[in-house]
Amino acid sequence: MRTYTELREDYLNYLKSNPLVGSPDELYDPANYILDLGGKRIRPVLVLLGYQFKRSDVEKALPLAHAVEVFHNFTLMHDDIMDRADVRRGKPTVHKKWNENIAILSGDMMLVRAYRSINQIDAPSEIKCLITDEFSKMAEEVCVGQQFDMNFETRDEVAEQEYLHMIEGKTSVLLAFSLMSGSVLAGATDEEARMLYDYGLNVGLAFQVMDDYLDTFGTQETFGKRIGGDILENKKTLLAIEAFKRAKTNQKAELDSWYAQSIDSQEKIDSVTQIFKDLGIPDYAKSVMGGYMTKAHELSEVLSKTGSMEALNALTADLNQRNT
Amino acid sequence: MRTYTELREDYLNYLKSNPLVGSPDELYDPANYILDLGGKRIRPVLVLLGYQFKRSDVEKALPLAHAVEVFHNFTLMHDDIMDRADVRRGKPTVHKKWNENIAILSGDMMLVRAYRSINQIDAPSEIKCLITDEFSKMAEEVCVGQQFDMNFETRDEVAEQEYLHMIEGKTSVLLAFSLMSGSVLAGATDEEARMLYDYGLNVGLAFQVMDDYLDTFGTQETFGKRIGGDILENKKTLLAIEAFKRAKTNQKAELDSWYAQSIDSQEKIDSVTQIFKDLGIPDYAKSVMGGYMTKAHELSEVLSKTGSMEALNALTADLNQRNT
Repeated sequence: MRTYTELREDYLNYLKSNPLVGSPDELYDPANYILDLGGKRIRPVLVLLGYQFKRSDVEKALPLAHAVEVFHNFTLMHDDIMDRADVRRGKPTVHKKWNENIAILSGDMMLVRAYRSINQIDAPSEIKCLITDEFSKMAEEVCVGQQFDMNFETRDEVAEQEYLHMIEGKTSVLLAFSLMSGSVLAGATDEEARMLYDYGLNVGLAFQVMDDYLDTFGTQETFGKRIGGDILENKKTLLAIEAFKRAKTNQKAELDSWYAQSIDSQEKIDSVTQIFKDLGIPDYAKSVMGGYMTKAHELSEVLSKTGSMEALNALTADLNQRNT
Repeated sequence: MRTYTELREDYLNYLKSNPLVGSPDELYDPANYILDLGGKRIRPVLVLLGYQFKRSDVEKALPLAHAVEVFHNFTLMHDDIMDRADVRRGKPTVHKKWNENIAILSGDMMLVRAYRSINQIDAPSEIKCLITDEFSKMAEEVCVGQQFDMNFETRDEVAEQEYLHMIEGKTSVLLAFSLMSGSVLAGATDEEARMLYDYGLNVGLAFQVMDDYLDTFGTQETFGKRIGGDILENKKTLLAIEAFKRAKTNQKAELDSWYAQSIDSQEKIDSVTQIFKDLGIPDYAKSVMGGYMTKAHELSEVLSKTGSMEALNALTADLNQRNT
């Protein structure tokens, strides 16, 4: 059984040997540029871990792992345009380095290439059709999640269920699909595939809620970004939604006042953070995360009886470490 | 055997019964809006005509016809952003009526839906995988064509071969794929499918060159757009490329001078048109068109021996009528 680090190495070698080749350069260079920016490569490794659940010849799953990574980077390229983001991983985003038209079109090409990579898998057509269809459903859910995210920016109130549905689409379904599709390729039963999907979904949700938590209550050192960013951007995260729900009249007035202002102010961060603490939001966020992790753990217990979950559980524990 | 008009009616009924359903509205409304703007629906009908080449139960090909129409409208939605186009078929474009982010994301969703529609075909997985892979290759060629088109806008010189390669990607490969994939679904042989693809490619190229011709030498009545638009936009069409190649020193200087100006001037249209005439460009364009139509006709002769080409040839002749 290969570890996360080994599987990541396997994928990076595949990526290096399989750049997106074509002409004109304006279409293909941006795609290879964003793919080469780095990252933890969690999604392609999840495909390989899903495959490894049943089989050890993981090289057969590399085109599928690649499809998932190319798809993920397509969404980043288009999201960066929509979010007007100038920088990704310390480098200029594609629409900044080239231009918006190129970022739109190169992204479109990457989505097509993701499908082509699925079609390159060495597997019976039934399996490829099944994976392609699940991939399409997942891709549409990602679009839905991104549109809800944009809608929420201009909405005054967002319910917790709406928020969770949004982050499920934006981040979790791709993680869930990655694990599930890898296992399907390796011959997992429908039941195993469904449980691995749910495992990925729950870990993904826990991960995103933790991200919300660390954005306010982490340290810059472990989180890697300035603490308080979500508060400055008036983001309706799980923390903010629950805080508005719990706030008494005077706290509600104070939150309303801060969230009506778009200013870069440490006082705003400190004041809102203090209200969150007074309202017990840190414990609430941890309990929501804990709920998802418990579900993932329960699924893992069952899955361990029929397949290999060690490397996957180790990765999940690693991701969870950020919390401590 | 059903005629173009009947098959168009079949597809329009299918389209009406199969709107893209989902939430949020901001993602799905723009897709249905652009799909409902109308048009000749040539591409989905070509799928049905490709199917009818071998079989008459054309309803089996409707999801594939729909995939092609949804894909075509995805390209229009994204192209309109890139071309900064405000109006399509007399109505505001999606990025004008909503906004650019919505046009990007709704277009992405449509591309995914096109793939989903292919997966809904009632056919063996081998056939669906084959059609999916050909669809992906076609979609990538369309991206390549669009990128070359954008590149050519800022290039001084474009060779005829480069131009033809560009229009092949931008318009012909989708027509060719439509015919070919319909025939594959109906059980055409590889040879028949390849010939139908080439037929579509040649008719598409003839159609695009005719479009260039009519833009300068047509009448507003039959062409439907202001005559001389390409000249005003300094477009490197087949006509302009050949004119620059044939021009003597003084004509070349005159063309250079006009093509260096971005002005809305009837004098510019008249002067450039006269130079085109002096250089024999109308006859040249007609001979290029004629070359493509001859190839299509030759293919049709062979294809007629093993399948039904009547309705398809009638449609091609109809499209060609614009020329007279």
